[in-house]
Amino acid sequence: MGEFDLIERFFKRPAQLAQLAQPYLDVALGIGDDCALLQLGPNEQLAVSTDLLIEGRHFFANVNPRSLGHKSLAVNLSDLAAMGAKPLGFTLALSLPSIEENWLTEFSKGLFDLANLSRCPLVGGDTTAGPLSIGITIMGKVGKGQALKRSGALLGDDIYISGALGWARLGLQFLQNQLKHPLSEADQKQCIKALEWPQARLALGSALCQYASAALDLSDGLSGDLLHILKASQLGAVLFEDQLVASLGTLDYWQHLTVQEKAQWALAGGDDYELCFTAPSKHRHALEQLSQQNPQWGRLHRIGCTTANQRCAQLSADPLRLMYLPEPR
Amino acid sequence: MGEFDLIERFFKRPAQLAQLAQPYLDVALGIGDDCALLQLGPNEQLAVSTDLLIEGRHFFANVNPRSLGHKSLAVNLSDLAAMGAKPLGFTLALSLPSIEENWLTEFSKGLFDLANLSRCPLVGGDTTAGPLSIGITIMGKVGKGQALKRSGALLGDDIYISGALGWARLGLQFLQNQLKHPLSEADQKQCIKALEWPQARLALGSALCQYASAALDLSDGLSGDLLHILKASQLGAVLFEDQLVASLGTLDYWQHLTVQEKAQWALAGGDDYELCFTAPSKHRHALEQLSQQNPQWGRLHRIGCTTANQRCAQLSADPLRLMYLPEPR
Repeated sequence: MGEFDLIERFFKRPAQLAQLAQPYLDVALGIGDDCALLQLGPNEQLAVSTDLLIEGRHFFANVNPRSLGHKSLAVNLSDLAAMGAKPLGFTLALSLPSIEENWLTEFSKGLFDLANLSRCPLVGGDTTAGPLSIGITIMGKVGKGQALKRSGALLGDDIYISGALGWARLGLQFLQNQLKHPLSEADQKQCIKALEWPQARLALGSALCQYASAALDLSDGLSGDLLHILKASQLGAVLFEDQLVASLGTLDYWQHLTVQEKAQWALAGGDDYELCFTAPSKHRHALEQLSQQNPQWGRLHRIGCTTANQRCAQLSADPLRLMYLPEPR
Repeated sequence: MGEFDLIERFFKRPAQLAQLAQPYLDVALGIGDDCALLQLGPNEQLAVSTDLLIEGRHFFANVNPRSLGHKSLAVNLSDLAAMGAKPLGFTLALSLPSIEENWLTEFSKGLFDLANLSRCPLVGGDTTAGPLSIGITIMGKVGKGQALKRSGALLGDDIYISGALGWARLGLQFLQNQLKHPLSEADQKQCIKALEWPQARLALGSALCQYASAALDLSDGLSGDLLHILKASQLGAVLFEDQLVASLGTLDYWQHLTVQEKAQWALAGGDDYELCFTAPSKHRHALEQLSQQNPQWGRLHRIGCTTANQRCAQLSADPLRLMYLPEPR
């Protein structure tokens, strides 16, 4: 049983049934999006998200503790970015096998550097002895009706992604000695930075509130993550192979791959923490301008559009062919 | 290094320094109380608390999973109660060594039964494979200026506790075969219920907003927990031995103990999840009435009063003597 099945079976239904019987007026959006939304006052909503990182599964035991502190918060900030929410604060549930002062100094430095930069203070938490795990719950705020849900995409909307995909996966596979081709030193540096120091697209997420119809952040890989938007919006999509390839950005490593392999890398990323969003085609010009005026967000790539056929396909222009993507796990 | 030292050293200072440099206007109360308080609108504050439960440290591997689901949420609700806040919702970060359907069915039943009863829906979370741990972050709301902080006690305030103390510790020591005297079957039932099915005093906490000057919930034991209020309020206290004894309620087991031993049990409890609060003496009559009208909260015991001498002492009437309590861990 996978994570999504487990949530669906044991933790989603009872709350929803309870909501039908006795509506929780404060819950504007429950389980199943990047963040939950709680109604705060007439005009504002609280966005809440939780991520749990376990040693051996989500990070290596020997990872640089400063980058681990950074990444633990960054992946949560990324969930706020995907809702278009602004950070309010976060809590930390930290389980430690022993108290190593150097480790804690570095971990807390990485955490607080990003917290200060993002104006997102640590407001509470819990620490205990136990296997190393890091649980962060982040809270943000967003104007009522402004949040970027997964379910808002409409037929014919353009599909965009921010930044460059596949770099973090390249870094991970390099560290695990799983790459088929050599990775240049310059690529190693960039890819390990992408893996260990992800940047949450908070400013982009905020800006998208006036353009995007749906959004999420890419954590498991584009092909699986995009399906969450499509399922929630009851749509399909076609993706442009050339734009998937362009979204990989510039790395020496790509020269070893065929066009098809490159497109697969973009689709099968993971740990990208870029935003994937949909927007009506009337906003194409505005989004192009937004992208050019803000090079710090990386380039926005328009990688496809939504369709009525509830499947997701990859379109190759030369020769013209549609390849249906396999159902993700 | 204990938990409080660890938080003070690595996780408290940087946030506060950052606050001095660039105030986070949304943080009304940071680390160090039962909940953090975030400003929501002109009139409301968000109360947030996190608790992390680890197998082997906070619960036995063979504990009834339904009671574990209940207790995981109850200890968080208790933090809201101690602030006088009303539940809004919670997130769950669950790490599981394997997916056992019976265990998950029972755990989620215990969790959702209490969530529904408390009108506190599960709004999000994260699940992963890993050592069994349960992290819950709870959110509630409280009127601006209404929250019961630890720092609000004034000189001469009465000190109260709700319910009966020491029962959960008796249940724990029974299960661990650490009791010096036999525990009757009736006592066993009551004490294990107190240990495994704690009740958060939400309605009492709400009612106390108009009477109490400071409050917290008793999780580590009265003698240590009360010191948090006294330190935050820069006060001392004298406690009445006869009222400490009365706060133990009615169990067969107490007949084995001397008066002094009974008072020590009340002080050294743990997992009580009752409220300890201070209130000006002018509210004595109102609080007595509140207690009589709401027997479901257990009896309120007025166990002492605050003093200017910043130590905490236990007062015995016969013969009259002051015994200073040892500094807690």
